[in-house]
Amino acid sequence: MGKLLYVCCIMLLLLQAGLASKTRHFKWEVGYMYASPDCEEKILLGINGQFPGPTVRAKAGDTIHVELKNALHTEGVVIHWHGIRQYGTPWADGTASISQCAINPEETFIYRFQVDKAGTYFYHGHYGMQRAAGLYGSLIVEVADGEEELFHYDGEFNLLLSDWYHQSIYDQMVGLSSKPFRWIGEPQSLLINGRGQYNCSLAAHLMEGSSACKLTSKDCAPVVLRVLPGKTYRLRVASTTSLSSLNLAIGNHKMMVVEADGNYVEPFIVDDMDIYSGESYSVLITTDQNPSSNYWLSVGVRGRKPNTQPALAIVSYQPNSPSKLPESSPPVTPKWNDYNHSKSFSYKILARQGTPKPPSYADRQIALLNTQNKINGYIKWSINNISLALPPTPYLGSMRYRLKNAFDTSKPPENFPSDYDVMKPPKNPSSAQSSNAYVIQFNSTVDVILQNANALADNVSEIHPWHLHGHDFWVLGYGDGRFEEKDDSKFNLENPPLRNTVVIFPYGWTAIRFVADNPGVWAFHCHIEPHLHMGMGVIFAEGVDHVRRIPKEAITCGMTGKMLMNNNLP
Amino acid sequence: MGKLLYVCCIMLLLLQAGLASKTRHFKWEVGYMYASPDCEEKILLGINGQFPGPTVRAKAGDTIHVELKNALHTEGVVIHWHGIRQYGTPWADGTASISQCAINPEETFIYRFQVDKAGTYFYHGHYGMQRAAGLYGSLIVEVADGEEELFHYDGEFNLLLSDWYHQSIYDQMVGLSSKPFRWIGEPQSLLINGRGQYNCSLAAHLMEGSSACKLTSKDCAPVVLRVLPGKTYRLRVASTTSLSSLNLAIGNHKMMVVEADGNYVEPFIVDDMDIYSGESYSVLITTDQNPSSNYWLSVGVRGRKPNTQPALAIVSYQPNSPSKLPESSPPVTPKWNDYNHSKSFSYKILARQGTPKPPSYADRQIALLNTQNKINGYIKWSINNISLALPPTPYLGSMRYRLKNAFDTSKPPENFPSDYDVMKPPKNPSSAQSSNAYVIQFNSTVDVILQNANALADNVSEIHPWHLHGHDFWVLGYGDGRFEEKDDSKFNLENPPLRNTVVIFPYGWTAIRFVADNPGVWAFHCHIEPHLHMGMGVIFAEGVDHVRRIPKEAITCGMTGKMLMNNNLP
Repeated sequence: MGKLLYVCCIMLLLLQAGLASKTRHFKWEVGYMYASPDCEEKILLGINGQFPGPTVRAKAGDTIHVELKNALHTEGVVIHWHGIRQYGTPWADGTASISQCAINPEETFIYRFQVDKAGTYFYHGHYGMQRAAGLYGSLIVEVADGEEELFHYDGEFNLLLSDWYHQSIYDQMVGLSSKPFRWIGEPQSLLINGRGQYNCSLAAHLMEGSSACKLTSKDCAPVVLRVLPGKTYRLRVASTTSLSSLNLAIGNHKMMVVEADGNYVEPFIVDDMDIYSGESYSVLITTDQNPSSNYWLSVGVRGRKPNTQPALAIVSYQPNSPSKLPESSPPVTPKWNDYNHSKSFSYKILARQGTPKPPSYADRQIALLNTQNKINGYIKWSINNISLALPPTPYLGSMRYRLKNAFDTSKPPENFPSDYDVMKPPKNPSSAQSSNAYVIQFNSTVDVILQNANALADNVSEIHPWHLHGHDFWVLGYGDGRFEEKDDSKFNLENPPLRNTVVIFPYGWTAIRFVADNPGVWAFHCHIEPHLHMGMGVIFAEGVDHVRRIPKEAITCGMTGKMLMNNNLP
Repeated sequence: MGKLLYVCCIMLLLLQAGLASKTRHFKWEVGYMYASPDCEEKILLGINGQFPGPTVRAKAGDTIHVELKNALHTEGVVIHWHGIRQYGTPWADGTASISQCAINPEETFIYRFQVDKAGTYFYHGHYGMQRAAGLYGSLIVEVADGEEELFHYDGEFNLLLSDWYHQSIYDQMVGLSSKPFRWIGEPQSLLINGRGQYNCSLAAHLMEGSSACKLTSKDCAPVVLRVLPGKTYRLRVASTTSLSSLNLAIGNHKMMVVEADGNYVEPFIVDDMDIYSGESYSVLITTDQNPSSNYWLSVGVRGRKPNTQPALAIVSYQPNSPSKLPESSPPVTPKWNDYNHSKSFSYKILARQGTPKPPSYADRQIALLNTQNKINGYIKWSINNISLALPPTPYLGSMRYRLKNAFDTSKPPENFPSDYDVMKPPKNPSSAQSSNAYVIQFNSTVDVILQNANALADNVSEIHPWHLHGHDFWVLGYGDGRFEEKDDSKFNLENPPLRNTVVIFPYGWTAIRFVADNPGVWAFHCHIEPHLHMGMGVIFAEGVDHVRRIPKEAITCGMTGKMLMNNNLP
């Protein structure tokens, strides 16, 4: 009787969930279009003629169904749903050469997956450097009907941050793959929701040495956040920059950080926040300032010597005119190389009570040394001396169907030489390209130590935001210098935040833990677009035998394509 | 006994041919590279790091075997072997959406076909506008061993002409597909063997109003033809321009035209020659001028008001220094709109004795009216009011395997309204896009009347060079104004030249005849790259049931790909 009641209850709950959750349909076409995101006209990748792409809004538990038509003339395309774990749908992760074959021109591919967790996400191209060509948009998952957020707010704004280059991605890719190497340099502009102003400042009249912007197109009109006095607003902030690490601040207003990468964090208050490519945050602001003024929201570059003007938006107290420029200067971005400021922010991010805790120990520890290398004179990034070269046949299919020779099956190293000096350029900068993958025991717990080091030049070590597909991970700790065994003891197992992206600071290490409970093949890589292009990533494969249906459309290329044609489906 | 002898003879001949003819192997990679073809550095499509691509040299009867690897990051690629008829190998014609699926990045496709006829040919990309991005090279077929050319020469030079834009093909394609329409304009430079000089002249010191060139890169050094006095040279000249109609002349030297599009023509002598995109010629020059001088070879624009400097090369009499600039000014290109000059040249081209004659009557006559139109506000080119929109599944596969719904199976019109006034803009400029095809009875003889007309603007009618794949055709005649039934009687059936490309003059018509004896699906289109992009072409399908093997690799996309996967191969 008790058992029957229990089953009934479960069924009722499922039914309710079934009734509440929806399938949200989208019909998209990816194509090039003209736009003037920073007042200079260029072509960029848009969706349905929009840049950034349409914002997807859903509720936790909903199913997203996107019919994606490739309307490009000669290029393939995929879309990655950044932060969505894709439980049961690893083929929908949208990573070319990893989870699927690129969609050919004129073809349509259906992404169908569940968004199981409320939070601030985004989506973007994951083929070549198409993200940097403008292929991105926001993906907002609200709490399920009947559920409530853990914090109150009266309204929300969505800010998708990016950086923008005037050089085409084709030019960029050729330069990065050339000998001598040509670096893409700093972006021409920073964009907020796809809008910025090139080589000028909206606040030029308040700042020395800045030239005033000529807003030559509505595409580059400043973003305005119209608020009412005395209210609380949620700002959803995500960064899909190609290169830049950013800092965001609002004149006179403090921000309370409440969410990071779709996970609640213990609220804390800051004057400014760092945000790295691949990260997302929610912050609450209270409109408790003089309501007769408007205020600047400023986004500037950190971690690299900036050569790009900060992007500005206007927080406009109603009924002020939105075009009324704020009277005080925009907040000044902290000094680019004040890493203590950055660390202080990152270290404050801790899990909110109620967040699942990590298993208390790991089954395996993988140490990944990030180095800059030269392969036959070409500059690359390597992980444990291997620079990732993606294979023509996506791993998910070739692993699932156990195809031979689809990728390098050698085991990538678990560690790096104990005498490697992370404070100096590599003694022997040579390295090798490979497509090999870390095969991880299904349901095991893995620690990854991301170890930063000196690049090729003396006294250079850069910030790298690492993003894991298919999972959230716990950030157990950060440290300076080389990770040592005894550092384990300092791991935070009490309230480590859950994230999908985490940064490694110059010359430092970051330790993360995750449970390999999601059958599929998942990229783990630096989210800086040119760094990934230069090989800065690894592949994790877990429980691939448990992957059930892979749509044929996802595996029509390379050796899986040949397999399908020969009808050798196991 | 007589019969046995006959069979033996045939076998001996075949054996001999077999011994003499070779398979010529090439291993190519297509990728972007930096180059400064006109002294301004850009990225362009090269093959094995070369631009233009490597010259293919073979002898008639040889088999060409090209392993083509696509080393682009996100784009497909194909290569069309322009002028090669591809008897028995229609899948090797290299036309995306027509003869094959585009080759995906990292994939290799093998083109294997016979070059059965000596002549001057070339190859180029035939996907999107990749030809205009630099994907082209020369293909020279010499007479078979033991055979002799019909004319004597002491040496030969190969000149592949092209035009060059600084704007990327992506920018160009977006502009052409935009509302409002953005025309690509005139090219920045003309190139001879991939070399030109932007916005300057090598002969500036001899000409008013020209600025001298700074040769900032060896890529843009002038082409030099080093000759000996008192000799005869064959110049092989082909044009793969994106837009420009060209005229070539050499100071002080006359040219004897002997070959057109791989067919001998009755020799005739000219001071200058027109050459349209898609055409090739051989001309003989005799080095009978003052040997102490060098001479300019000049290539200028015709048919559109030029805004591009002529390209110059130097004919250098040995032992003069090749860098010794000619003392006299370069030949002046005839006035761009002197169409009588152009017609006079075209009308002189007649078949050399011994050239196969056309059948004396046609089984079918198709009249193709070329008009500029507007479809939903987008400017397009249409043929009998249909603007060609290629389907995702290449015709060759979908027709061969009789797939349903792979393309529009409606019959395109055989003619156009009898009251259409070709001298005026279209009364109703609207039109429709379609993928429908002309299905032609195998082995039947077809006449096509290409009818030019006024474009959208008053008093504008442009030159269009039409290129037929898979065949040579006889050029039966040209006329001004609208073609009328009685014009049949003026057809030249005696010595019409065989060509694969022919021009229609403004407001005029051109009549061609061909025998549909080559099983396959063949594009027939304006060879101007942006015009084809805007829909200016038709599809001819003939004897598709007779097509034997199609390599699977050619049909892995679209509906044929699905068919292969479902193993529904008939």
